[in-house]
This record gives sequence, structure tokens and C-alpha cells, in this order.
Amino acid sequence: MTDESPQPSPAPLARRLVAEFLGTGLLVAIVVGSGIAASQLSPEDVGLQLLENSLATTLGLAVLIAVFAPLSGAHFNPVVSLADWWLSRRSGDPGFAVRDVAPYAAAQVLGAIAGAVLANAMFDVPAAIATTMRATPSTLLAEVVATAGLVLVIFALVRSGNARIIPAAVGAYIGAAYWFTSSTSFANPAVTIGRIFSDTFAGIAPASVLPFLVAQLVGAVIGVVLVSFLFPVHAAATERDWSKVPAEVAK
Amino acid sequence: MTDESPQPSPAPLARRLVAEFLGTGLLVAIVVGSGIAASQLSPEDVGLQLLENSLATTLGLAVLIAVFAPLSGAHFNPVVSLADWWLSRRSGDPGFAVRDVAPYAAAQVLGAIAGAVLANAMFDVPAAIATTMRATPSTLLAEVVATAGLVLVIFALVRSGNARIIPAAVGAYIGAAYWFTSSTSFANPAVTIGRIFSDTFAGIAPASVLPFLVAQLVGAVIGVVLVSFLFPVHAAATERDWSKVPAEVAK
Amino acid sequence: MTDESPQPSPAPLARRLVAEFLGTGLLVAIVVGSGIAASQLSPEDVGLQLLENSLATTLGLAVLIAVFAPLSGAHFNPVVSLADWWLSRRSGDPGFAVRDVAPYAAAQVLGAIAGAVLANAMFDVPAAIATTMRATPSTLLAEVVATAGLVLVIFALVRSGNARIIPAAVGAYIGAAYWFTSSTSFANPAVTIGRIFSDTFAGIAPASVLPFLVAQLVGAVIGVVLVSFLFPVHAAATERDWSKVPAEVAK
Amino acid sequence: MTDESPQPSPAPLARRLVAEFLGTGLLVAIVVGSGIAASQLSPEDVGLQLLENSLATTLGLAVLIAVFAPLSGAHFNPVVSLADWWLSRRSGDPGFAVRDVAPYAAAQVLGAIAGAVLANAMFDVPAAIATTMRATPSTLLAEVVATAGLVLVIFALVRSGNARIIPAAVGAYIGAAYWFTSSTSFANPAVTIGRIFSDTFAGIAPASVLPFLVAQLVGAVIGVVLVSFLFPVHAAATERDWSKVPAEVAK
Repeated sequence: MTDESPQPSPAPLARRLVAEFLGTGLLVAIVVGSGIAASQLSPEDVGLQLLENSLATTLGLAVLIAVFAPLSGAHFNPVVSLADWWLSRRSGDPGFAVRDVAPYAAAQVLGAIAGAVLANAMFDVPAAIATTMRATPSTLLAEVVATAGLVLVIFALVRSGNARIIPAAVGAYIGAAYWFTSSTSFANPAVTIGRIFSDTFAGIAPASVLPFLVAQLVGAVIGVVLVSFLFPVHAAATERDWSKVPAEVAK
Repeated sequence: MTDESPQPSPAPLARRLVAEFLGTGLLVAIVVGSGIAASQLSPEDVGLQLLENSLATTLGLAVLIAVFAPLSGAHFNPVVSLADWWLSRRSGDPGFAVRDVAPYAAAQVLGAIAGAVLANAMFDVPAAIATTMRATPSTLLAEVVATAGLVLVIFALVRSGNARIIPAAVGAYIGAAYWFTSSTSFANPAVTIGRIFSDTFAGIAPASVLPFLVAQLVGAVIGVVLVSFLFPVHAAATERDWSKVPAEVAK
Repeated sequence: MTDESPQPSPAPLARRLVAEFLGTGLLVAIVVGSGIAASQLSPEDVGLQLLENSLATTLGLAVLIAVFAPLSGAHFNPVVSLADWWLSRRSGDPGFAVRDVAPYAAAQVLGAIAGAVLANAMFDVPAAIATTMRATPSTLLAEVVATAGLVLVIFALVRSGNARIIPAAVGAYIGAAYWFTSSTSFANPAVTIGRIFSDTFAGIAPASVLPFLVAQLVGAVIGVVLVSFLFPVHAAATERDWSKVPAEVAK
Repeated sequence: MTDESPQPSPAPLARRLVAEFLGTGLLVAIVVGSGIAASQLSPEDVGLQLLENSLATTLGLAVLIAVFAPLSGAHFNPVVSLADWWLSRRSGDPGFAVRDVAPYAAAQVLGAIAGAVLANAMFDVPAAIATTMRATPSTLLAEVVATAGLVLVIFALVRSGNARIIPAAVGAYIGAAYWFTSSTSFANPAVTIGRIFSDTFAGIAPASVLPFLVAQLVGAVIGVVLVSFLFPVHAAATERDWSKVPAEVAK
């Protein structure tokens, strides 16, 4: 998601899937690992644990997006892949192909599970299914808001020509969303599934997962609608530097 | 507030008002929501609560400005809209029209109230009018300083050709102002009114609101005077890259 | 300290002095004010107080430099003014004139005192001379290191053509130096004098001031020597984009 | 590691070695010094100590890289020097010469030791060999992950044309890695050796050092393999702006 995107010739799918696997895996390793460290080292204040957990995620997520965006787009998130396909569908450039959505989602989910397993191993925590129940009406509302906001942030920046700041912006958004939502902002079906596999600070019990996924999908739809209304393609075009718009789009 | 501003053809007013409504609403949801989370999770240290609250706001506000600035200017604040109109009044480009100030302010206030209601809902907190009295001579002085500083930061960066860093700078400024002012830096009439509608960490009792608004207006006037003295238009022109100044301004 | 510097025609001295007065004043208001808030709100852990104080300063200082650099250079510090004069003395461009050093220093010291008074007023703290003794052999060594590092950071970035990141870099450097030095890194004679005037968390007793100033001067000299050795002018020239070097320097 | 690299004519080796000595020394002074301050000031919560320690390192490391990168590349780390040589071996430009690896490593190790001694002196802590045992199977796995990630971050950004953000990205990466690894992420043989020389928060007992170094080398190899697979040179070339690729590489 640097100035070079859309890339003239994208990397082969296999390499892009490895990038999505690694990126999502390291993201979950950061979320789960820093959660374990925080709860071990700051046992007396849950807020301090969440502060440590959220700051580590803010910093680490921004770096992961910067590293992998030139290769795979750094989605790390099935609803971002879906939204990318939908929103780029009618634009002049090739965009993200619908046939890539399912492989991307698979790589993301597998990566997320591997990341949780890696975090357990690094902290010598026994593998176990998480037992933290998280789904309530208010946390599900929070997941809707968190995911809608995530989709809005990413694609508003894309459409207004500011994609180069997406790594920092998404890291910062998630860092804030840990705090302003009651769910601590999962906002990502792959990461939600991965976090089943560590019964620690950042874990989520399987019974809470399906409601979370539904809420995230609803949020993604709201986010896509907001982007489409606020940043319709032709408006985005007028707001960017015309000299950089490809001829086939500018006509 | 990216390189593209001033935009060749601004978005229709309706879309810009939706942007101001959403941006101000999400800002208040961040301030109020992270305040609720912080006070629930770190019950023993008010400073730690404010640290959590202020870091979430720093990160979230920067993102919101980056997202909405290309569309509406990302004012989220009636005194910023007023100052933008006043300071762009005599410049060569069209600037922010005086007829847009009132609709912007209305969208901001409604958004702020909606944001507080949303935060209450996400945390399952009952709707209630805030009871935290905040107006004292020292906090009112603090609001004057905080608002003057905010106006100075925004329009100094605009006039010196550094508008592209306004998202990060305003987020950082507010993050610091939470701490260096005794009022925790409201600095925004719309947000102040919105924060009436949550009787939680970030709430403000109605009786404190009018004094806060007056202090904010005084601060805004001081900020405008400072900007006008320190960065008079012709000086700003000499300080920027002449090759980028439109011909009609450079003559 | 943006791309536009060196400015084709600098602002009049009076306006630059107002900028140095305001910038140094707000810097001290941030340091002292956030120190008061931190010690009041987190009474049980001095480290947490310093974390709050240092993060507020990191954010606030970066913003102040970004705001005032295009106008006055945003020195806010007599040893930076001295180093700027000395290091620009022999370069092709006019640089910072020796006749401006004393007025700058006066504006900085007056601003620093005003900033401490303002912080006291915002927090309703009675005016008093600080009583915190700070000078020991190890804190004086720390001030030497902190000031040498500050001068090195600023002028290494200037000479390698990266002046545009000075606001963020100096904010971050001071944020780190709060922690890695035993003195909490004053590194600034004007700010040191200003901090006499608040008997609070960030205050310094008058008896400790002279040793601190001497240590800061020694550090500044070391910093200038390091810059001169590591980044001699001709090396800086080869490291920057030749196409942007003015003809009179490139020959 | 700014836009100017690869430099048309690099600085003499002696100056580059001084840069590596100073940069690594200041890095260890930051890590050790902030660790001492944190453990003294926040005695009751190890997590809070690590938060203070990691934030100071995040900020300070980013600044050090920005300062020294235009001169020496700002490796501060023997495995980064090794990886830089290996990965630039076959590219069109001269790259980092194999004959410079050993002198760089020596300067880094000496700097790291000096930095620990300096931190001890600034905090008036007696010189002593560290006694903190750190090597366990899980922390060694963590060092493998941390070092592989560090190498991947640096050279992915180099190869995708985003080297200008390396200072912020590496600072952020290490800040996250403090938390998501169980070893607190040494990821650097020179720094590991330096941290022997302070028996404080950030120290490491000599008996743990060799296992850590082996793990770091293994991690570096994994990182190099990942970079070579994900960002092969010709792919990196297609992903960057062709107009900026030197003719000899683009053919």
C-alpha cells in the first residue's frame, strides 16, 4: 500500500499467499504473545495489561503492513480482502480479483492459528482452547463499529490518494479501538479464529466466535457502504493529483 | 488537509456534513468509550486511566483527521470552522465559506451527541446526563490556553505549507494537552456538548458547559490573532516553495 | 526545519523572537503542567508519573517544533542557537547570524519563565521557587550526555538532508532521554532556568541550576565536535541530492 | 537509509566505524539506562518497568537509526551487517563489502560495552557482571523469531523501495518485540554482549549469552531466506518506480 500500488505486475499468487500467512501469523503472535507477557508481568491491573497489549499491537501491526503491503496488499483479514474486491470491482485498474479472495482467506486463517501456536510456544504456555466468553449484545455492537471503522479507514485513504499512510493509520486505529470498543476490537475473522487457540489474555472461547464473525461481516458491509457514499470513484479522482491519474481513468 | 487541498472542486455540502457528523461522532465515541474502559479496567489510579484515555484519543483523532480531511477538512469543531472561515477570508483561493459555518457546527454537535450515545451503548452504560463539575477559574484558563494552542497548531501548519502533517500533529497536540492543562483540554464546543450525554469518566455536567464554551471562544480568538501576527499571508507565501504557488496567488 | 529552509527571506527578528518566546513558553508549560497533573493523578508510582510526563513532552515538543520551525527555526534552547550559529558559520548560505544569538536566548529564558508561571496558574499551584536538588556527579554526567546527543541529533539530520523529520526526532529523543539519563534530561539552559519557578514535579532548586548549565554547555561542545567530525560540510553535500543543492554550494 | 542510499561515495571507513560505535553505544545506554530508571522508579510492577523500558527504546532507536543511517547504514548489529553483505552481494550496485563486516562487528561490540558502562555511570550503579539467567528453550525460540523478524523488516523495506521508513519501522518493531517475545527481544549479538556489563534490569548473565547468539544467528538465516524468497531482486525492481531504477539494474 505504498506509492507503487497498483503494481504494474503483481507477485505470483503463491508468494502473496505466503505473505498473507506470515503477516497474519505474526499479527496474532503479537496480539497473543504481548497479551501473555502483559498478564504475567502486570498481574494487578487489567487496564495496564491492555495498555501494554494495545501499544505492542499498534506498533507491530503498522510494521507488518508496511513490510507486506508491496507484496500482497497486507490484508491479513478476510473482510478486508472481500471489501478490496468489491470496491475495486468497477474501477479502471485490475484491482483485487474475486478468485483470490478464498485463497487469501485460507492463508489468513491458517496463519492466524499458527501465530497463536507460536505465541504459546514462545511463552511455554500449554496449547489449549480459549475459555474467555466474549459475546454480549454490547460487544457485538462494538465489533460492528470496529469493523466498519477499519474498512472505512483503509479504503477512504486508498480512494483519497493517501494509501502511503495506511500502515501507521491502521496500527493507530486498532490501538485506539482496543480502548473505545467494549470488545477490544477483534474486527477480523481470521484473527478471531486464531485467538481460539490460546487460553490466555487475548483468547476467545469458540462459543463466542460465530457471533463475532457475523458482527464483523455486518460491520464490513456498513464500512463498504460508507466508503461508497463518501468517496465515490469520480470524487476520489477529482481530489487526487490529476497528473498521476492513468489516462483510462481520467477520461 | 493533504497535498490536494485546496481541492479543485469540493464535495457537495451534504457529503461534507455527513463526514463532519461521522468524524465528530467517532471522536466523541473514542474519548468517551476509552474513558469508560479505562475507569473500569484501571480502577485504582486516575493517572493511569487518563494515560489510557489520552493515548487512545491521540491515535484515534489522528486517524479520523487523515480519513475525513480530503472530504470536509476534518474540522470536527465549530471554533475550527469559524477560524478557517475567518483566516481564509482574504486569501486568493475560495477558502471555507461563511455560509457553511452553521451547517458544519450543527453536524458537529449532532455527531458529538450521537458519539456519546454510541459509546454508552457499546459499554452497556445507561444513558444519563453527566454530573462531573469541571468549571473553575484554573480549568477555564486551561481551556483558553488549550483552544488557542489548537487553533495556532492547525493554521500555522496550513500557512507554512505543512498541512500534510496536521493529522499527526493535532492528535499529538491533544494527547499532550490532556496532561498539560488542568481541564484535560476539551477545546471544542461540539465535543463539550456531546460529553454531557455520558455520566462517565469523560462526562461534563451541564452547569460547566457554558463557561467552557466561552473560554473556548476566547481561546480561539487569541489563536486567530497569533496566527495572523506570526503567519501573515504574504509571509506564508514567501516561506513556501514558489514553484508550487498558483499563478493567481503568486503575482 | 521543513523543506523550505533555508528560507529565501527570513521573517523579521521581532516575529522570530515572539515565536521563540511562545515556543519555549509552551514547552515549559507542557513539561511543568504535565508533571503537576501526573504527580496529582498517579500519587503512588513515580515511574508512572515520569511516563505520563515524558509522553506528554514527546508529543507536545514535536508539535511545537513543527509549528515554529518555519518561522524561527524552533530552537527553544540557547545551546541550539549557539550551535546553529557555529555550525552554519562557514557554509555557503547565510545561516544563523551571531547577532541573533543573544536576543534568541533572552526570548527563550523569558518564555521559559512565563511557561512555568502559566502552568502554575492552570493548576492553581501557588508560585514558589523549586526546592528539588538535582545536581550530583551522575546527573551532571547525564546532562552532558543528554545535551551532546540533542545537538548531534539536530545537526546530523540538518547536514544529511533530513531536516524535515527533526520535529518527530527531537520529540522522540527527549522522550527517550527522560528515561536513559539519571537527570531526566533537561539539556536546555532556558528550560532549566524556567523550571526554577514551579515547586512541583518538574522543578529544579536554584542551587542545582549553575552546575546543570555548565554540564549542558560542555555537552553542547561535545555535540558540535561530533557533528563536525561525522558530518563535515562536503560530506553532507555528497550525501544529498545534488539536483537540489544551490549552485553556489555545489561548485 | 534515506532516499540518498546507496550513496554515490560512502564516507571513509573510519568515520563509519565511529558512527557504528556511537550508535550501538547509545542504543545500549538507552536500553540499560532506561531499564535502571524504570526498575528504580516503578518498583512494584515489572510490566510497568518493561513498558517504560520498551517505549524509551522504541523512541531512541528510531532516532539513532535516522541520525546514523546516512553515514554508516546504522546497522548497530552484526547480524544486520552480515545480512546486508549477503543480500547485496549479487545486486547491480556495490552494496556492503564483505571486508567491512568484521570491523563493523568490532565497533558494534565495543560500542555496546561502552554504552553499558556509560549507563552504569549515569545512574551511579557499580560496575558488575550481570547475573540474570535468560536462556531457556522458549526464550531461545523467541530470539530466533525476533531476529528473523528484524532481518525481514529491514530488508523487505529496502527491497520494496521503502527504506526511508526504516528508522520508525525498526524502532516500532523492537518496541513490539519486547512484548510479543518471551526474551524481550535482544535480537542483536553486539547488544547482547554489551548487556553483560550491567547487573541491572536489562542485564544478561554470561552463561546465557552463547545460546542467545546462536539463536540470533539461526534467526538471521531464516530472515535472509524469507527476504530472498519473498523479495527476489527482480521482483523488487518491478515493484518500485522504474523511472528511479539505475539503467544498469533495469536492463
